[in-house]
Amino acid sequence: MRDILLELHKSEIQGLLDLSTGAKAIRQAYIAQAQGCVQVPEVTYLGFEKVNGDCHVKSGHIDGTEGFVVKIATGFYNNPSKGLASSNGLNLLFCAKTGQTLALLKDEGWLTDIRTGLGGALTTLALARADFSKVLIVGAGLQAEHQARCLQHLSSDPGITFKIWARRPDQAEQTAQRLRSDGIEASAASDLQEACKQADVIITTTPTKTPLVQSSWVAPGTHITAIGADCPGKQELEADLVLRADLCLCDLAAQSLLHGEFQTAAAAGKLSAKTVIPIGAVLSGDHPGRTNDAQITIADLTGLAVQDAAVSLSVYRAAQTGKPNEGTIT
Amino acid sequence: MRDILLELHKSEIQGLLDLSTGAKAIRQAYIAQAQGCVQVPEVTYLGFEKVNGDCHVKSGHIDGTEGFVVKIATGFYNNPSKGLASSNGLNLLFCAKTGQTLALLKDEGWLTDIRTGLGGALTTLALARADFSKVLIVGAGLQAEHQARCLQHLSSDPGITFKIWARRPDQAEQTAQRLRSDGIEASAASDLQEACKQADVIITTTPTKTPLVQSSWVAPGTHITAIGADCPGKQELEADLVLRADLCLCDLAAQSLLHGEFQTAAAAGKLSAKTVIPIGAVLSGDHPGRTNDAQITIADLTGLAVQDAAVSLSVYRAAQTGKPNEGTIT
Repeated sequence: MRDILLELHKSEIQGLLDLSTGAKAIRQAYIAQAQGCVQVPEVTYLGFEKVNGDCHVKSGHIDGTEGFVVKIATGFYNNPSKGLASSNGLNLLFCAKTGQTLALLKDEGWLTDIRTGLGGALTTLALARADFSKVLIVGAGLQAEHQARCLQHLSSDPGITFKIWARRPDQAEQTAQRLRSDGIEASAASDLQEACKQADVIITTTPTKTPLVQSSWVAPGTHITAIGADCPGKQELEADLVLRADLCLCDLAAQSLLHGEFQTAAAAGKLSAKTVIPIGAVLSGDHPGRTNDAQITIADLTGLAVQDAAVSLSVYRAAQTGKPNEGTIT
Repeated sequence: MRDILLELHKSEIQGLLDLSTGAKAIRQAYIAQAQGCVQVPEVTYLGFEKVNGDCHVKSGHIDGTEGFVVKIATGFYNNPSKGLASSNGLNLLFCAKTGQTLALLKDEGWLTDIRTGLGGALTTLALARADFSKVLIVGAGLQAEHQARCLQHLSSDPGITFKIWARRPDQAEQTAQRLRSDGIEASAASDLQEACKQADVIITTTPTKTPLVQSSWVAPGTHITAIGADCPGKQELEADLVLRADLCLCDLAAQSLLHGEFQTAAAAGKLSAKTVIPIGAVLSGDHPGRTNDAQITIADLTGLAVQDAAVSLSVYRAAQTGKPNEGTIT
């Protein structure tokens, strides 16, 4: 009988994704993307203006891996008024040798959150100074937490301290508290300018359309991982800061230059696909990345379908092998 | 808890899709497509050359209906050597008001077969002469049967006789036998030329790249529904026959002119999106369709994502209402 072999709910998926294994898969995805060893068709979009909703369908395959993914993610932004979550989504994994459905992952968007967290952490670790310890996270939402947890998990350094800044100080404090309760050294920052000046690493996770981080606040040697900007108009960093950076990197230039953090610099002709470095090239060693402790590096992440394929495969493999799982976070 | 509300296997879906209800839904889909009241993003394609496989992801929504569909269809053509079916597929239905998953239809491609059968039957009934009775089906595969069964079901005329022609006469005979066992008047045709000359309606369902039906074999007044051609190079009708037709119709000009039956005529500059008539325009009455009994009409079907949406919604509604179901075919 032909059937879907594996159906997993969010809680089951959370129990199966080992963060270290997931990070290895995401690293492979970034490198494959940089080397062109992937299939990533155009993202499909459906819009539902009257109810303030949309749907994105992404699909991707890393050459040589056993499965390809089709991810369907919806955002219906009037849902909370009905007591429903805005975001819904699921990942479907198919066998790349037979086309059969391998797994239906009803992750409700959780895998996207985690692969974004892992991608940010890998990027930060690859580009920050070797001696970094002070990390500022701008924003206090779900992704702020994921960035902190993934970075702490993947770093072998126990001495990282996190500062959380948000427009609403109470939310920054709540996020810091949640991180502290898991043994992560975190506190709220009240002054963004001061917090930027002191940071070795800045991770931005907001949907702002008015840049928050000014160039004059950023010290030499700082690395910035920009997560928030994902559509035309969104921008977290002052344009001058992007121009000042010694290295600009991204996961996918076509996205980053068009609707990510680099859109303004690209529109002004100051950045192009030729000058922005793929993160995967740094991870593979094909590009040296940071070469001294005074450089400012900025990496913009807009997300890859092959990241979805990578984490979906990780979950599938874990379910198949029944391997014990450590380092799970929810 | 957020979850998929309804999961149905092929046999359950077959029990829920009433053919008459499905036909109404397909009619609505054709009309909406012709009127532009639809969302149909570009089809997503992934290819797996080494294993002779591919995956198409189609998505669509008919304005105003409660759900949109994402259909994933795979074809891995080496599968039969492993004892597996070549085709796999499923339809996912999402709420157009909240984005929530309404149904996962594990139809294994059956809904695509049926919506193609129903679309062909509706088209044939709309374009054939009012007094048609002799139907020739070229090809003896699954779609040949679906075309015959759907046409017989939707026609109020008990006097239709079907001839089945195939390259392999034994297959034509087997298909005719299966139809007869369901009370449909059917027999195999040994001579394609003779069968074409006698037919009021010709329905072509083969993947041939060498045209089978010659212009000189087709009598005035014949209607042809062409189902088989769905990629560059495939062609079932002699090019002269297409040029000779009084009316050329299709479900979607962009597909039909590029990789459907009309590709050769379009490449020669003899047909364009302006001269090919949408089937939905005839079904809605916006175009008169056939205006006399001597005209030759040709309709080319390449399939619409909104047909998938329409039949998926029909199944979903039937499951929700628990309505009794008549006229099911498998």
